Amino acid sequence: MTKTDIATRVYNHTWKLDPIVRSLIDTDFYKLLMLQMIWKQYPDVDATFSLINRATTVRLADEIDEGELREQLDYARSLRLSKKEAIWLAGNTFYGKSQIFEPEFLSWFTDFQLPEYELSKKGGQYVLHFHGRWKETTMWEIPALSIINELRSRAVMKSLGLFTLDVLYARAKAKMWAKVERLRDLPGLRISDFGTRRRHSFLWQRWCVEALKEGIGSAFTGTSNVLLAMDSDLEAVGTNAHELPMVLAALARNDAELAAAPYQVLRDWKQLYGGNLLIVLPDTFGTAAFLRDAPDWVADWTGFRPDSAPPIEGGEEIIEWWRKMGRDPRQKLLIFSDALDVDAIIDTYRHFEGRVRMSFGWGTNLTNDFAGCAPREIESLKPISLVCKVSEANGRPAVKLSDNPRKATGEQAEIERYLRFFGGSGRVEQPVVV
Amino acid sequence: MTKTDIATRVYNHTWKLDPIVRSLIDTDFYKLLMLQMIWKQYPDVDATFSLINRATTVRLADEIDEGELREQLDYARSLRLSKKEAIWLAGNTFYGKSQIFEPEFLSWFTDFQLPEYELSKKGGQYVLHFHGRWKETTMWEIPALSIINELRSRAVMKSLGLFTLDVLYARAKAKMWAKVERLRDLPGLRISDFGTRRRHSFLWQRWCVEALKEGIGSAFTGTSNVLLAMDSDLEAVGTNAHELPMVLAALARNDAELAAAPYQVLRDWKQLYGGNLLIVLPDTFGTAAFLRDAPDWVADWTGFRPDSAPPIEGGEEIIEWWRKMGRDPRQKLLIFSDALDVDAIIDTYRHFEGRVRMSFGWGTNLTNDFAGCAPREIESLKPISLVCKVSEANGRPAVKLSDNPRKATGEQAEIERYLRFFGGSGRVEQPVVV
Repeated sequence: MTKTDIATRVYNHTWKLDPIVRSLIDTDFYKLLMLQMIWKQYPDVDATFSLINRATTVRLADEIDEGELREQLDYARSLRLSKKEAIWLAGNTFYGKSQIFEPEFLSWFTDFQLPEYELSKKGGQYVLHFHGRWKETTMWEIPALSIINELRSRAVMKSLGLFTLDVLYARAKAKMWAKVERLRDLPGLRISDFGTRRRHSFLWQRWCVEALKEGIGSAFTGTSNVLLAMDSDLEAVGTNAHELPMVLAALARNDAELAAAPYQVLRDWKQLYGGNLLIVLPDTFGTAAFLRDAPDWVADWTGFRPDSAPPIEGGEEIIEWWRKMGRDPRQKLLIFSDALDVDAIIDTYRHFEGRVRMSFGWGTNLTNDFAGCAPREIESLKPISLVCKVSEANGRPAVKLSDNPRKATGEQAEIERYLRFFGGSGRVEQPVVV
Repeated sequence: MTKTDIATRVYNHTWKLDPIVRSLIDTDFYKLLMLQMIWKQYPDVDATFSLINRATTVRLADEIDEGELREQLDYARSLRLSKKEAIWLAGNTFYGKSQIFEPEFLSWFTDFQLPEYELSKKGGQYVLHFHGRWKETTMWEIPALSIINELRSRAVMKSLGLFTLDVLYARAKAKMWAKVERLRDLPGLRISDFGTRRRHSFLWQRWCVEALKEGIGSAFTGTSNVLLAMDSDLEAVGTNAHELPMVLAALARNDAELAAAPYQVLRDWKQLYGGNLLIVLPDTFGTAAFLRDAPDWVADWTGFRPDSAPPIEGGEEIIEWWRKMGRDPRQKLLIFSDALDVDAIIDTYRHFEGRVRMSFGWGTNLTNDFAGCAPREIESLKPISLVCKVSEANGRPAVKLSDNPRKATGEQAEIERYLRFFGGSGRVEQPVVV
């Protein structure tokens, strides 16, 4: 007798929609931390988020069906925080601290709904904007990216036979496990999952997170994905992102406010968070400029997250600055999170071992590395450098310079104005793969 | 909502027995060809088959539970040919010939039941004999071996967590597919599955067979497993085995009959089969002796299956003999089947390319290669050299000498008598891995 569960098979093959994002907390933890700050300190600021595909040769509008994209975005807009999720956010300890979210904030978030989106096509690309209050539009960043990335992989998967799919995932699992085994050799390693936005799929991210949990044990310090953290009893990790200084800089009414913006963000942040959440993200307008003008108290923060310079050079620059400011780097924390894979993690770990505390946020190459896994090479299985960035705040253009000019975003004239203002020293062009 | 099919889950976790052998034709095709010959020409001969574990350091009686072994053997004894199977055997074309099985034979086989077994333990090993008519006991060889081998792997699997199992099979699939990709590079390759007896499990053999079918297409010429051939629309392949000359030699009443036995087998065989089924298995009492004394007509047969000499040396010996007998090797077929893996297949293929027709029977390293696949090395995942050989015929001891003294079977005194009779020239000791 063949054992096929009829209901399951029918369901698998005929359901109306297979949602990609099924929960409002299937997002990065730092979005919630930032959201609370925005809700509290900048409730009336408008911010537009916009999709930017840096991989201009990949014609997303050809790869992904617009109807499917709209269905997924609409489904995400139908989501509300579940009771279980609200209770968990209120009752769980984050970074060793209970009640990190204020009851008033959680009460507001319980009714939260993703705002409307504006979608069109132009030149083979999707033009996707989210207009509205910053405290609403900010929450689109991660679901928008994970929806588009998963629709891209689903489009590939539809073209493959059952057997090819089987071999594909078998190889991806074997490849991932080989990485796990290499990471095991690093005593005291601290690594977490930062791969939500560019994951191959939700289920694949979950598999990778479970692989790390099983494979490297306590070296796996958590996941940025709030839903996976809740479901798998892991720490939810993450701090803050470029959107904070980008918006504050856009809102600046004069040069003094523009110069102060990167540090004003830190003051705002410190009103809400402490300890290991005091992590500086220095590269929004160039790390060199940030360090050059930083007040002394910035050196008292727990650590830095260099996010666009090569990890060894970027780390050395910050260590050198700590020394100059009279702080002991061995008491400090560096969080590396830009385009990491196992080789870069091991090299960086070995380079800084014993000289500074380190932590690694492993993203795209954790949750979307299928290179060499398909029986034939499939271009659209490769992850692309797709971001969803704040483009305007209160109608004024927002800019990111980054330490890597290729990661800069914003209108060209504004980028040049910021470059004249902050200076471009230390910025080095590097290929942006993911 | 979590989607777990309750009935399936309960069934998976509570069934009384998960049978290993579920069909009488889950066996090697050559057993059916030989069975018809035995049934027709030697219906009253008694033959005892006995389990021989050449891997004496592996204590099978410790690894496998006796109760489970008995349950599986008893279950195999409960099997009867199904209607579908009988119709397929009668209606299918084998080796390009229809009605290869006589209606009287199939009618008799429809009522066939595996005979009783005799099981005990001694020194950490199972002592397992099958006594009775040759035409009944012969059918135990393959199910007995595949039951014991799968019980061995199941015992390992029971100790592994779900995640470890997942990685194990993912790696095994990736490993298998890497082999498939290497075999694709050989134009005109002909390879078939000979891996039933030492398979990791039935489901794994089926996966490997499907991988070959998908991966190398027409280069995959079939499977020795009759059930898989039927279910997957593949050719059933195989010819004859050592038991034929072993029994005929044991029955010999004098030196002349003993000397004639290896050739008498071929005469008997030719009464029933022709074409590509005319394959000589020359090594039962040593290939050198066989070729030395072979009548001229043996060189008219389609091909040889060297089964215990190293493939290149063994093939050259037979090619040389064909030349000496005035036959053109390019018209002849060599079937290689001993302990092959991809390296040996490629080397042998390259060595003989254009000089002789070739075919490869890929066994244990196809269906039971999990080396390096478990997160930690597990000794009992390694296949062992386990055979089930005819040990007596009509009460007289049966012997196999083989080209590799380590593969010899039989009582030591009898082995020595056979060696004096046939001579030991050309026999070279080699490690027996599987």
